[in-house]
Amino acid sequence: MDFEALIGANDGGVVQIRRDLHRHPELAFLEYRTAAKAAGLLSALGWQVKAGPEVMDASTMLNPPDAEAVHAAQAQALAEGAPAEWIARMPGGQTAVVAELSRGEGPTVAFRFDMDALPVAETEAEAHRPNQGGYRSTHPGVMHACGHDGHTAIGLALAARLAQPATRWRGRIKLIFQPAEEGGRGAQPMVAAGVLDDVDHLFVGHLGCLLPSGQIAPVATDFLYSSKIDATFTGQGAHAAMGPQEGRNALLAGAAAALGLHGITRYAEAVTFVNVGVMRAGSGRNVVADRCHLMLEVRGSTEEALAFMRRRAREVLEGAAAMQGVSVTMEDMGGTIGFTPSEAAAATVADIAAGVEGIAQVVPSWPIGGGDDATYLIKRVQDRGGSATYFMLGSDLAGIHHAADFDFDEASLRQGVDLLAGIADKLLAPAD
Amino acid sequence: MDFEALIGANDGGVVQIRRDLHRHPELAFLEYRTAAKAAGLLSALGWQVKAGPEVMDASTMLNPPDAEAVHAAQAQALAEGAPAEWIARMPGGQTAVVAELSRGEGPTVAFRFDMDALPVAETEAEAHRPNQGGYRSTHPGVMHACGHDGHTAIGLALAARLAQPATRWRGRIKLIFQPAEEGGRGAQPMVAAGVLDDVDHLFVGHLGCLLPSGQIAPVATDFLYSSKIDATFTGQGAHAAMGPQEGRNALLAGAAAALGLHGITRYAEAVTFVNVGVMRAGSGRNVVADRCHLMLEVRGSTEEALAFMRRRAREVLEGAAAMQGVSVTMEDMGGTIGFTPSEAAAATVADIAAGVEGIAQVVPSWPIGGGDDATYLIKRVQDRGGSATYFMLGSDLAGIHHAADFDFDEASLRQGVDLLAGIADKLLAPAD
Amino acid sequence: MDFEALIGANDGGVVQIRRDLHRHPELAFLEYRTAAKAAGLLSALGWQVKAGPEVMDASTMLNPPDAEAVHAAQAQALAEGAPAEWIARMPGGQTAVVAELSRGEGPTVAFRFDMDALPVAETEAEAHRPNQGGYRSTHPGVMHACGHDGHTAIGLALAARLAQPATRWRGRIKLIFQPAEEGGRGAQPMVAAGVLDDVDHLFVGHLGCLLPSGQIAPVATDFLYSSKIDATFTGQGAHAAMGPQEGRNALLAGAAAALGLHGITRYAEAVTFVNVGVMRAGSGRNVVADRCHLMLEVRGSTEEALAFMRRRAREVLEGAAAMQGVSVTMEDMGGTIGFTPSEAAAATVADIAAGVEGIAQVVPSWPIGGGDDATYLIKRVQDRGGSATYFMLGSDLAGIHHAADFDFDEASLRQGVDLLAGIADKLLAPAD
Amino acid sequence: MDFEALIGANDGGVVQIRRDLHRHPELAFLEYRTAAKAAGLLSALGWQVKAGPEVMDASTMLNPPDAEAVHAAQAQALAEGAPAEWIARMPGGQTAVVAELSRGEGPTVAFRFDMDALPVAETEAEAHRPNQGGYRSTHPGVMHACGHDGHTAIGLALAARLAQPATRWRGRIKLIFQPAEEGGRGAQPMVAAGVLDDVDHLFVGHLGCLLPSGQIAPVATDFLYSSKIDATFTGQGAHAAMGPQEGRNALLAGAAAALGLHGITRYAEAVTFVNVGVMRAGSGRNVVADRCHLMLEVRGSTEEALAFMRRRAREVLEGAAAMQGVSVTMEDMGGTIGFTPSEAAAATVADIAAGVEGIAQVVPSWPIGGGDDATYLIKRVQDRGGSATYFMLGSDLAGIHHAADFDFDEASLRQGVDLLAGIADKLLAPAD
Repeated sequence: MDFEALIGANDGGVVQIRRDLHRHPELAFLEYRTAAKAAGLLSALGWQVKAGPEVMDASTMLNPPDAEAVHAAQAQALAEGAPAEWIARMPGGQTAVVAELSRGEGPTVAFRFDMDALPVAETEAEAHRPNQGGYRSTHPGVMHACGHDGHTAIGLALAARLAQPATRWRGRIKLIFQPAEEGGRGAQPMVAAGVLDDVDHLFVGHLGCLLPSGQIAPVATDFLYSSKIDATFTGQGAHAAMGPQEGRNALLAGAAAALGLHGITRYAEAVTFVNVGVMRAGSGRNVVADRCHLMLEVRGSTEEALAFMRRRAREVLEGAAAMQGVSVTMEDMGGTIGFTPSEAAAATVADIAAGVEGIAQVVPSWPIGGGDDATYLIKRVQDRGGSATYFMLGSDLAGIHHAADFDFDEASLRQGVDLLAGIADKLLAPAD
Repeated sequence: MDFEALIGANDGGVVQIRRDLHRHPELAFLEYRTAAKAAGLLSALGWQVKAGPEVMDASTMLNPPDAEAVHAAQAQALAEGAPAEWIARMPGGQTAVVAELSRGEGPTVAFRFDMDALPVAETEAEAHRPNQGGYRSTHPGVMHACGHDGHTAIGLALAARLAQPATRWRGRIKLIFQPAEEGGRGAQPMVAAGVLDDVDHLFVGHLGCLLPSGQIAPVATDFLYSSKIDATFTGQGAHAAMGPQEGRNALLAGAAAALGLHGITRYAEAVTFVNVGVMRAGSGRNVVADRCHLMLEVRGSTEEALAFMRRRAREVLEGAAAMQGVSVTMEDMGGTIGFTPSEAAAATVADIAAGVEGIAQVVPSWPIGGGDDATYLIKRVQDRGGSATYFMLGSDLAGIHHAADFDFDEASLRQGVDLLAGIADKLLAPAD
Repeated sequence: MDFEALIGANDGGVVQIRRDLHRHPELAFLEYRTAAKAAGLLSALGWQVKAGPEVMDASTMLNPPDAEAVHAAQAQALAEGAPAEWIARMPGGQTAVVAELSRGEGPTVAFRFDMDALPVAETEAEAHRPNQGGYRSTHPGVMHACGHDGHTAIGLALAARLAQPATRWRGRIKLIFQPAEEGGRGAQPMVAAGVLDDVDHLFVGHLGCLLPSGQIAPVATDFLYSSKIDATFTGQGAHAAMGPQEGRNALLAGAAAALGLHGITRYAEAVTFVNVGVMRAGSGRNVVADRCHLMLEVRGSTEEALAFMRRRAREVLEGAAAMQGVSVTMEDMGGTIGFTPSEAAAATVADIAAGVEGIAQVVPSWPIGGGDDATYLIKRVQDRGGSATYFMLGSDLAGIHHAADFDFDEASLRQGVDLLAGIADKLLAPAD
Repeated sequence: MDFEALIGANDGGVVQIRRDLHRHPELAFLEYRTAAKAAGLLSALGWQVKAGPEVMDASTMLNPPDAEAVHAAQAQALAEGAPAEWIARMPGGQTAVVAELSRGEGPTVAFRFDMDALPVAETEAEAHRPNQGGYRSTHPGVMHACGHDGHTAIGLALAARLAQPATRWRGRIKLIFQPAEEGGRGAQPMVAAGVLDDVDHLFVGHLGCLLPSGQIAPVATDFLYSSKIDATFTGQGAHAAMGPQEGRNALLAGAAAALGLHGITRYAEAVTFVNVGVMRAGSGRNVVADRCHLMLEVRGSTEEALAFMRRRAREVLEGAAAMQGVSVTMEDMGGTIGFTPSEAAAATVADIAAGVEGIAQVVPSWPIGGGDDATYLIKRVQDRGGSATYFMLGSDLAGIHHAADFDFDEASLRQGVDLLAGIADKLLAPAD
């Protein structure tokens, strides 16, 4: 689908783009179609666009995809209409895109939009709107189950709005399209590439999160510190009946570890979470499994709580390995940090939100109930003296985030565009 | 490598063929290169060869490979020199081959050789002879770790020997090349196709199994009844921090089941085994896993003990599902039965074995320490009044069966050919 | 030790009484020495004292102690100096005591003090002040590890203070000495007996809870709804080597349940806790355990979260039983509910606290980090139109509550007496 | 009940004594009533009786009972009619009794009888013969669930028979009444005291073990090597809601260990068993459990298999401790070894058995399906050149050994006496 035509056609463009993205979800660091089509549109709209290594420091990418996965994603993106010239500028999973537009002197205002989808198989239930509307994911086992399709659509519609000659703003606007928010790996390489170093005002938002449609919260709370960890147990294979005693069972080590990790005690004065999301063990039914791979994450509402969870996770993994006489290695695969909102940025959101059509209530804050590595972007801006906040854009949900029946209220998209355009107008209002 | 050249060249042929097969291991029901090259050679040697649906009843194949896997295996076999005309005769994983040769009136003597390899990654250790000799597996993650390469090589060398005009036997010889012995799925379709219905004497053997080089046991004992079971837990995904309480965790159900299955009590008057060889759960680190797949097997030395293990496995799986509020389905994927040797067949093996060059000792029996679905073949022959046994061909091992460093003493291969040729000569000796 | 002498002697009396109680800790519903000595002192001070069935409805006691335990506790109390006439008035573990004093017309002000200790073995560490001061527990395995010795001492010192003729208050004061706060079983029988039905103002407090010495919080927050559950698995014994397959293993069911219960997922928008505090299984080393008893509790910051924890606990227990083919029964053993403070009561505490000697700071609220069944008392008072709050009395701790090295700052005791006396003086100030 | 009267009265004496013993079961090293009454009777019959330290080396007793338990058992025995003078000769749980009778020159023939019962609560089912016959255990939670009441009764009836002046034997007979067979702790102290050092022929037997009534096997097979191990986990207590993260959970370590121990893999060429028979953890529902005690045993049919089980048990225990950050200690509490029968002794049993009234079949051997530390006695006799065997005395069972409904066919008792008396007569036949 031609994004330029969509944007130009009518106000429904943001919804059409969202649905196009929803049909073509891409996993973290593999957002080739999304990023290349976005870059193409932004460029066509007159924005100065950078992509790939220009805006990401590859040396700081945790757990980048392997060459085979990159190649497959690029081929699929090409086949699905992404411009080859932009794909060519994004080697090795470096799918970040940054668009800038300057109009005379003035501060720099930046907005962040994340682009990646999740390894979730979208429901086939009839009641699911994407099924009714014909925009269900066409990529088996991959789904925009967290609303990043909506975020990217807002960013592109905003780009079209702000590029209109009739707008009066002065200064510089930076639109940051970030890969790999899920897993917490996309933000830090962009910080390392200096993308945030000239930003005076940064606004990041998220759709949904149980905040109802018609509400905006200028501050998201309850950001969690998190660590993503991969653990691999290595044992010794053996025939399961001819000599199982010769084996050392990595699968059982992983099973005990999974139970033990989920059994790490609650923390009395902080919020904590733990999840072993993936376990892969063994290769043959009648062979003692010699290998087990776990993908897990721990979270905490304070650095201390996260440290506790990390320490306990290590104990559990090492103890489970010892129980089976196998070895275990652990690798840090990403993470997120908490954040403190800048008062000025929060006040700006509150001020503009009150005037957005369709917004009935501005609540002071709302828990995000998860994490977002945009906090690294926010920290960088604040460390350099800038102002930043993370806001919530209310949107009634069908299923919960990350579930196979996740869906949000598309009416919120236009509200998102209005909010951000209003912020830019206010902060970059001409002196005259 | 051209098998005809190898066989014709010299007595070392059996070793060369074994090494060629060792370099190209193929999983159960995907033995396209092995089966097609064998069929080609057998045909060239003058045997009447049947393959695929002629000798397998597809309707009784448990858990056949999917079309994609079959296609990939066929393509690989072609690329590695297998004759296309034989591959074409083996659709849908039907890789069985049966060769017959008749010389006048006389009984039918059959020999069984299994062809499949295992999902084991062969060791890269220098001391491993296949590494020293340059015949390590070239198929990543697949290895002849149970000696079936040797079995097939013996069968082909035996075919060459028995086809020589100089041999004096009268009657009919049937060489059965069976797929999918691992997992216990290849024998029953051949029984269902009637392959065994005209066999008067059947001999099946196995290399190694801790019987030292230079020894033969006419009877293998301790065959176990076994069931291969796949279990799938289905839960409910959810964001691991935004709403984990909305999820139902299939991964934890699988982990508890794995521990519970391995913890099924010993049985006081029978031998039992259990193994969860494979576990695959979840799709994303920060998503509550909504699916978990286990591949397991239970074994027992008596039908009663197997029934106990099956009952307990079901209780464990269902209870583990209930603990997490998830559902579970179980599917039978194959199995084996025990066997009782025919005295006549055992006596024949003992008689010939004593005269084989290199055989220092004939021990009455030896535990196989596992199972083999050849017991279905044996049962069919015995049920129809024929005579059959399962013998052990001693061979010093490096690593244990199914381990990444498994290897056997290649000197045993020639002894195997001599033994079987001797049996044919004796049972099919001309009346004059 | 003679409490009358202690109280009369000097201001150190509250500390001396606390130490005497600390040396003689008594478990829930077995506080015979504590209750009888308290009743004796209160009576001697001129209070009208009721005890046992007069102030407890035995039919609503959950899990009362058995006759043997009651008899042993009574005998021990007698041997340690408790007055026989009061013990005689407390049959069947009904150890509640209520003291009233009236002076003309006026409202009724009540204070609650809990008396029970915990099944914790007090540390023998030298640094532990009770060891240095010679007032370590003399009852093996029982310890005042939550400060109820301090609460009771405050109550008795307050009784002495308020009974002095020089005090000017008018109206009625009710001192409620509650048994069995631990486990949440003592409050409801007192509610059922009508003890709270004439109370206009109720104040309940707790020492410590990580609020530092010198601080008071008029409102304790984070009260948790809780359920105490006993679960018993019943299987089938068998000789562990002669026929383990005949058994059904209750110990393994309990072990899987314990791991599963602690592995119940966190709840994204509420605080939850779970603890299996006690497990007892099996009778002989070489017998398959036919019985396993678990004592557990689940908590939640909302009724919904508690309901979730209860549902999941039931699933885990029943699933674990099914895994082993054993049966399980569950019994509710007590519980607590949350609470909302009355503004008037909180304001009164804040007002008086500010003037208490040694109190440097009044913080608006402080999390209790647990539960207290005094919330049933508060609810009864509020339901009838009265005013109530639960306050925190700061006290520096050595070890944490319920730990073997728990200890608090005894300087807080006097502050507690001053606070409550001040509250009574204010609310019962004569009109003139 | 007066044993002398019973023995003297009629042939039913052996049954009456068994029932008396069945009503008064006593745990290992606490068999005060049994041993003292036996000693009294043996002495009255004219045997020379030694007891306690004379026939046990206390320094080699593993895990002797504590003083309190000994005192209680002695008091109970006294109250139930045991002679005080014999109790006085058995301090500290040293309850062994040895009776000798000599008649001129000749070899020494010894018989072993074990006396201890099990911590099993006898069934209250009506169909249970001890309930019908009024000889159910009167000691709550203790039961003769392995037939040692029958063994001891046979020994005493044999003593009466052999002491009759009419018997013609010449030489020396030694009756060994051993304590603490369960747990494998009673035999070694008797070996250490030299009890076996003058024995030329030793016969030990066991009732039941699934050998039917009317059958005798001169050789019991499948004796297992075993180790009894106590493991104690020590963690850190904490309030389960106020600060569970301060705790280290010993109960969860024990639970994971129990599952892990039962999950130790089968051994391909040997029989193994494992049982965690007892688990005790924690002291309070709302306290993180700081202590967990496991009583377990591992067995193997070979020394190598036992070594494997011990190594794996250690790994599991240490790994489970590490998972929870707790410490663990392990203590050896006893064990058994295997045995090889002396051909001469086995032949003697077979010879005599064939002539015993009621014995219809002598089977060559029968699996005991467990262990017995009498193998230490046998080993000592054989090491010194003597001859020994362990025979099985068939007896139809109601429930299985160690179950609450265990019971045997009392008709076997008389057969046991006849068998042993016959053996003595044969081996000690006068030369003339």
